[in-house]
Amino acid sequence: MVPTLYLIPTFLGEDSVGDEIPPLNRAIVASLNDFIVEDEKTARRHLKKLHSTIKQQELVIQVLDKHHPELMKPAQMLKPLKEGRSMGLISEAGCPAVADPGALLVREAHKQGFKVVPLVGPSSLLLALMASGFNGQRFNFEGYLPVKPEERRKALKQLEKQSRSENRTMLFIETPFRNDSLLQTMTEVLGPETRILLAVDLTMPDELIVVGTPAQVKSKSLKLHKRPVVFGLMAD
Amino acid sequence: MVPTLYLIPTFLGEDSVGDEIPPLNRAIVASLNDFIVEDEKTARRHLKKLHSTIKQQELVIQVLDKHHPELMKPAQMLKPLKEGRSMGLISEAGCPAVADPGALLVREAHKQGFKVVPLVGPSSLLLALMASGFNGQRFNFEGYLPVKPEERRKALKQLEKQSRSENRTMLFIETPFRNDSLLQTMTEVLGPETRILLAVDLTMPDELIVVGTPAQVKSKSLKLHKRPVVFGLMAD
Repeated sequence: MVPTLYLIPTFLGEDSVGDEIPPLNRAIVASLNDFIVEDEKTARRHLKKLHSTIKQQELVIQVLDKHHPELMKPAQMLKPLKEGRSMGLISEAGCPAVADPGALLVREAHKQGFKVVPLVGPSSLLLALMASGFNGQRFNFEGYLPVKPEERRKALKQLEKQSRSENRTMLFIETPFRNDSLLQTMTEVLGPETRILLAVDLTMPDELIVVGTPAQVKSKSLKLHKRPVVFGLMAD
Repeated sequence: MVPTLYLIPTFLGEDSVGDEIPPLNRAIVASLNDFIVEDEKTARRHLKKLHSTIKQQELVIQVLDKHHPELMKPAQMLKPLKEGRSMGLISEAGCPAVADPGALLVREAHKQGFKVVPLVGPSSLLLALMASGFNGQRFNFEGYLPVKPEERRKALKQLEKQSRSENRTMLFIETPFRNDSLLQTMTEVLGPETRILLAVDLTMPDELIVVGTPAQVKSKSLKLHKRPVVFGLMAD
């Protein structure tokens, strides 16, 4: 077998039942010993949930330094591939190499000519996009918006403008403890006809999907504090 | 149970083994009688593959008119929800309501206050993004590029410029019989340092992921004719 870097999506939260994970992912996890992860404790818990009889003490787990990605040594981390062993890359939640420094490892793997195989699994962004009913033929993921109030208001206005002129869905995220503040700004700043998307606790028992105008969303008095949320907007 | 519109991802191609589909999706399919699909024949084949003992003659299948989405009557199509029966929305391949008119149904479901539940499953866009090693914190999906040669070259140059100035990954697709022509234009038009992504036959036995500069990609003399491909570019 060609040594392969498997990109293994994981649960979006601790409360997920687990039946949203494809059997292939469990089989791949069962076949691997070498993993690169964001946080060792979460990863070990998820690996156990993916493969209940996994031998934790035999695993070789390397941790991505997300605070100092520039200090990462991707070539060194991929040494097991060079030695002929396939590896798994797992993010803290959802799909690896999308919103974590794992992309640097994927880049290095391509550079060295190793096989890269992305596995199907939970992605809050994609679930949010599907659930929105917004335009899926043209969309942006913008990551985090600016934190400073004035810049944030400006950024939201700009996204709304671009959404309207290009018929484009805009998705973004926020640090969970700032969710309520972002939502408040959205309901203040966005036009009365613009549709807001809130996709909350996706794949979890508390999953909540709200789509509506600023006034409609505001009237719901949602509490988003510390819950995982994908935000979106669409201006027609 | 609250009547729910389930968004059910399906196989990316006929050759997929099927172990990339979460067990939850099979259970949901088994629980439903009413489906909205893009093409009845493909859908019935996929439904059978998702639930081998499904009773085809009992299914109520409505077809999305993708050639005339403006003639669709979303409210009428969602009547089963009104009558208390949950429904499944299935696309021709991958995730529904992303690159098909199903988004109009999702929009209507929200308008009428029905529950919408997106299920985890294969998305060629997201798999391509993961596998690229490009920036996953900021990316665009651009759908189809213009067909006319001069406009297409201009569009590619524009995407490259935006990718460079905003550190943004650009993804796009093409009608499968024009894949080779698009790739040729990309290798001619893009700068020598720009990285190209070709994610081909994802989740299929022939899956191929190529990342490289225009010269590197050109040297591989790939044949992409009629294969499903997600294209991408990243200019640093």
